[in-house]
Amino acid sequence: MMLPTLFLILSVLFSSSHASVQDFCVASLNGPETPAGFACKTPAKVTVNDFVFSGLGAAGNTSNIIKAAVTPAFVSQFPGLNGLGLSGGRLDLAPGGVIPFHTHPGASEILLVTQGSITAGFISSANDVYYKTLKKGDLMVFPQGLLHFQISAAGITSVAFVFFSSPNPGLQITDFALFGNSLPTPLVAGTTFLDPATIKKLKAVLGGTG
Amino acid sequence: MMLPTLFLILSVLFSSSHASVQDFCVASLNGPETPAGFACKTPAKVTVNDFVFSGLGAAGNTSNIIKAAVTPAFVSQFPGLNGLGLSGGRLDLAPGGVIPFHTHPGASEILLVTQGSITAGFISSANDVYYKTLKKGDLMVFPQGLLHFQISAAGITSVAFVFFSSPNPGLQITDFALFGNSLPTPLVAGTTFLDPATIKKLKAVLGGTG
Amino acid sequence: MMLPTLFLILSVLFSSSHASVQDFCVASLNGPETPAGFACKTPAKVTVNDFVFSGLGAAGNTSNIIKAAVTPAFVSQFPGLNGLGLSGGRLDLAPGGVIPFHTHPGASEILLVTQGSITAGFISSANDVYYKTLKKGDLMVFPQGLLHFQISAAGITSVAFVFFSSPNPGLQITDFALFGNSLPTPLVAGTTFLDPATIKKLKAVLGGTG
Amino acid sequence: MMLPTLFLILSVLFSSSHASVQDFCVASLNGPETPAGFACKTPAKVTVNDFVFSGLGAAGNTSNIIKAAVTPAFVSQFPGLNGLGLSGGRLDLAPGGVIPFHTHPGASEILLVTQGSITAGFISSANDVYYKTLKKGDLMVFPQGLLHFQISAAGITSVAFVFFSSPNPGLQITDFALFGNSLPTPLVAGTTFLDPATIKKLKAVLGGTG
Amino acid sequence: MMLPTLFLILSVLFSSSHASVQDFCVASLNGPETPAGFACKTPAKVTVNDFVFSGLGAAGNTSNIIKAAVTPAFVSQFPGLNGLGLSGGRLDLAPGGVIPFHTHPGASEILLVTQGSITAGFISSANDVYYKTLKKGDLMVFPQGLLHFQISAAGITSVAFVFFSSPNPGLQITDFALFGNSLPTPLVAGTTFLDPATIKKLKAVLGGTG
Amino acid sequence: MMLPTLFLILSVLFSSSHASVQDFCVASLNGPETPAGFACKTPAKVTVNDFVFSGLGAAGNTSNIIKAAVTPAFVSQFPGLNGLGLSGGRLDLAPGGVIPFHTHPGASEILLVTQGSITAGFISSANDVYYKTLKKGDLMVFPQGLLHFQISAAGITSVAFVFFSSPNPGLQITDFALFGNSLPTPLVAGTTFLDPATIKKLKAVLGGTG
Repeated sequence: MMLPTLFLILSVLFSSSHASVQDFCVASLNGPETPAGFACKTPAKVTVNDFVFSGLGAAGNTSNIIKAAVTPAFVSQFPGLNGLGLSGGRLDLAPGGVIPFHTHPGASEILLVTQGSITAGFISSANDVYYKTLKKGDLMVFPQGLLHFQISAAGITSVAFVFFSSPNPGLQITDFALFGNSLPTPLVAGTTFLDPATIKKLKAVLGGTG
Repeated sequence: MMLPTLFLILSVLFSSSHASVQDFCVASLNGPETPAGFACKTPAKVTVNDFVFSGLGAAGNTSNIIKAAVTPAFVSQFPGLNGLGLSGGRLDLAPGGVIPFHTHPGASEILLVTQGSITAGFISSANDVYYKTLKKGDLMVFPQGLLHFQISAAGITSVAFVFFSSPNPGLQITDFALFGNSLPTPLVAGTTFLDPATIKKLKAVLGGTG
Repeated sequence: MMLPTLFLILSVLFSSSHASVQDFCVASLNGPETPAGFACKTPAKVTVNDFVFSGLGAAGNTSNIIKAAVTPAFVSQFPGLNGLGLSGGRLDLAPGGVIPFHTHPGASEILLVTQGSITAGFISSANDVYYKTLKKGDLMVFPQGLLHFQISAAGITSVAFVFFSSPNPGLQITDFALFGNSLPTPLVAGTTFLDPATIKKLKAVLGGTG
Repeated sequence: MMLPTLFLILSVLFSSSHASVQDFCVASLNGPETPAGFACKTPAKVTVNDFVFSGLGAAGNTSNIIKAAVTPAFVSQFPGLNGLGLSGGRLDLAPGGVIPFHTHPGASEILLVTQGSITAGFISSANDVYYKTLKKGDLMVFPQGLLHFQISAAGITSVAFVFFSSPNPGLQITDFALFGNSLPTPLVAGTTFLDPATIKKLKAVLGGTG
Repeated sequence: MMLPTLFLILSVLFSSSHASVQDFCVASLNGPETPAGFACKTPAKVTVNDFVFSGLGAAGNTSNIIKAAVTPAFVSQFPGLNGLGLSGGRLDLAPGGVIPFHTHPGASEILLVTQGSITAGFISSANDVYYKTLKKGDLMVFPQGLLHFQISAAGITSVAFVFFSSPNPGLQITDFALFGNSLPTPLVAGTTFLDPATIKKLKAVLGGTG
Repeated sequence: MMLPTLFLILSVLFSSSHASVQDFCVASLNGPETPAGFACKTPAKVTVNDFVFSGLGAAGNTSNIIKAAVTPAFVSQFPGLNGLGLSGGRLDLAPGGVIPFHTHPGASEILLVTQGSITAGFISSANDVYYKTLKKGDLMVFPQGLLHFQISAAGITSVAFVFFSSPNPGLQITDFALFGNSLPTPLVAGTTFLDPATIKKLKAVLGGTG
């Protein structure tokens, strides 16, 4: 067994190399953001709480029109993810609930059903359709950037947790993108094959103008 | 000036290092494909023609319903791009022509107008709309994975060339993805807020079933 | 609304670009493996089942000495993950169960507790300790390559699902690496500060020789 | 069709996740620069003009010795490119014009001829020569870091647009690097096989000293 | 040969493109750090000394218990490495010296023996052991994140230089991580298979508490 | 301490996950090559010798015109480097020896002087010159893709070892690229500002034709 003085020796040995080594970069959300993520919080101020997130423990509120809720755990909510290539989220789907067609521009997604049953699917660039009804414990993976959806397939509230290959995967819900903003109706009509009357109805529902 | 024998010396000097150095990896389209691209063609069979593509020189045929044509120069058409992080394409838009809303799941895009005028735009995850009418010589960049469109803004045929940050950017046209395949109408209705009658009409137009 | 012939037009329009576009690369586990993952399965043979994995639905067997089980969903078990930057796994910890100190050489990890309670922690290069007792619904992230552990903190079996930033994160359990193979005892002694008698005892327990 | 209140519901649903999601990172050119690019402009100040660049619309001035002009559209000129893995530029070559041998240390390049005709080529690590005379509409790709050139092959001014696999590809013109700075003549002689007299003449022409 | 005015022309030609092109990003160690490295020092203040490091020229002090010394040349010591994907270090091993089992969480390592002889090895995820006695001039590579060691195999002081695939590879010495900090003894016992008495002895030696 | 059966338990526990986990991918040099490197050798055939390379132990032959030798340890010579982001090499420079201006298209380089003294330098895109005379033990880093050189600065043979941020960095020696192949003299003249007579002389020396 080693002598007690080894402790002193090792402290000296590694003091120079460890002072500024960083294996992680907890986001300083008020600091500058870059293409690779946020600037790092000072290591001295990092605690275990930066690496733990409890915001997915409670059910989201599904008392709404789509009977569903999305609760994100992206880098903005969970700063410890910064630079680590991962993020998460929680889906709650009451019976009849749906997460409408959407994409994540910057990440692939893996979904884990933890309660109930969910029909999930995606569409490829080759326009092939891949969907299946998942039960508790099933995983499904959605390749980066492709249109996908999740829809309740149970008589009880279904719950899923999702994980992404980026701390900042983005989220673009097709309906919301097309009809929930100020893009002028003629432009929407010209680019979607939908007639102006339908577009105006959807804009009214989704809060769009123009 | 050096002596004539330098040539021999240098040949020896570098023979071992150069034999299998590859600065490029022209796609062997019949070989195995991997997440990083196609296997490489044998260097000895590579010629300058692997690095040149003439398929964008001619106008695409815009005598169709959308009065537009897309001609790709992706790695499948242009094998020299394999592994180099770039690809291209050509857009032809007759007056009134449109490239409907679409995404490229695996790449950002830069567009160059070379003839006529085009109104182009994209929508962000934050649901903000960015669009502008571009004239000849203008560039516009579309961040990876976001919904975007191009629409003719001229009384003549407009032409643009597009370039991507991947040899294999993918292309997902929203209408085609939602209504041009076998995804059952109830699933489409449940995930798009559109009513079944509208969906069935669009499926008829776009070749979808179910 | 568009004319019925649009379907034909679009089919032609995109036929050339879509033939070989791949948004995913399902692993052909018997094909060549590369630094970027396995060669891709022929797209025509890909089905939705390649993107779904049901192997984490059942509890692992914790009737063992560590009262714990690890069930992986890496690319070798779940070929659809190939090239997508993600994988998963399930941890079952009976009361008193433990996943001993280990690292994942190639990925960061995010852990979700779905039942019971788990004390989890990691140690940084600066030798700081970060650990916390997690309850159901909590997430914790472990930066790439750092030593970490999970230990039961409940009177019932605890369950967690883990996700990684690579389809092939690797797993190196420190005890198993040091004492469960043929590394000669003098070498182990020289490189761990442990005395040979302790090492030989651990080798006996963990199946090591030499 | 959905009820009008969906708009309110969705706004709530996504407010938390969208507040700080960024699909892009327009360069704040006065902010800190990092190995991954510039810090991001505040999203609230981003407009469509950050994603559009009109500086390539006009011909460069070729009334010079090399009868050619290079107009860059790198991240410094076109901040919207930051983090998106792409940039561009324009080449104008009057009859007899030439872009001398150069490299881009940080990117592959794709070139599109839009007027006239250009002979372009590159040399590989294996010292093989790949060059061809390109006509209007042709693309040629130059693998990252390799020496390449473009030379007029038409009786009229030729124009090409180039695109790079990085927002900041760099540009190192061999003559300028060897003879256009303060590197002492003996060092240049020792490292190029050229005799001092030739070097001094080239230094005089290219503005070098020493 | 060109005319003297070419110098002026070229200066104008490239002035716009070069002003802010950066081929490197010397670390500003007091500036913000990001997941991709430190912010860049102002180019105007960069000198050749930012790219040269002389700190590995002198032998480390091996008059200690492990009879070995590690001298790092990571980005914190050698700011010119920032963003360039490389770093280095020096190992001195007196006769009987050892660098105990450790990992680099963020990099692969290549080792070059320049004096004496060293037995080095690593253990894979599959728990296979790879070790060999290296002589002067030998290289050995250690894949990212795997446990490895170096031990003197000569009667004289052995010297090796190591290089990493990251400017900030990290360094986690297993003994130091397990026994050199405040991780409570019961937690260490639960996660290492070692008995509390052994742990307490090691903690005393390595400076751990609890 | 654990019971002897733990060995059996752990073997079962990890058998499924370890069977195909690969922390490394030793190059199968006869197998397919891809943009990410060579296909992997079967793990069962991998030995420690795949990770060790002894080819840099002997001095290169400097009895030549440049009084220098380059010995590469790239992936083609040292297959264990495949996929690990590193490679190496050895430089021998007799008094008066020189490694002429060259670039590595695919990697940054770090140089370590182990004997004698070497003047080394590089030129940036901004055309700034960075060079210094290095002594034994000094490191210098050369950013990716930039022109650089090494020249003897000692009365004895100088030795350096170089390491790269890629297993396959490439090597393009400017003189050899410009004058050592079949590129026609008029093309060389047009793209280098050198007069045809000088070019023909250099072609004769360096083995070029045309």
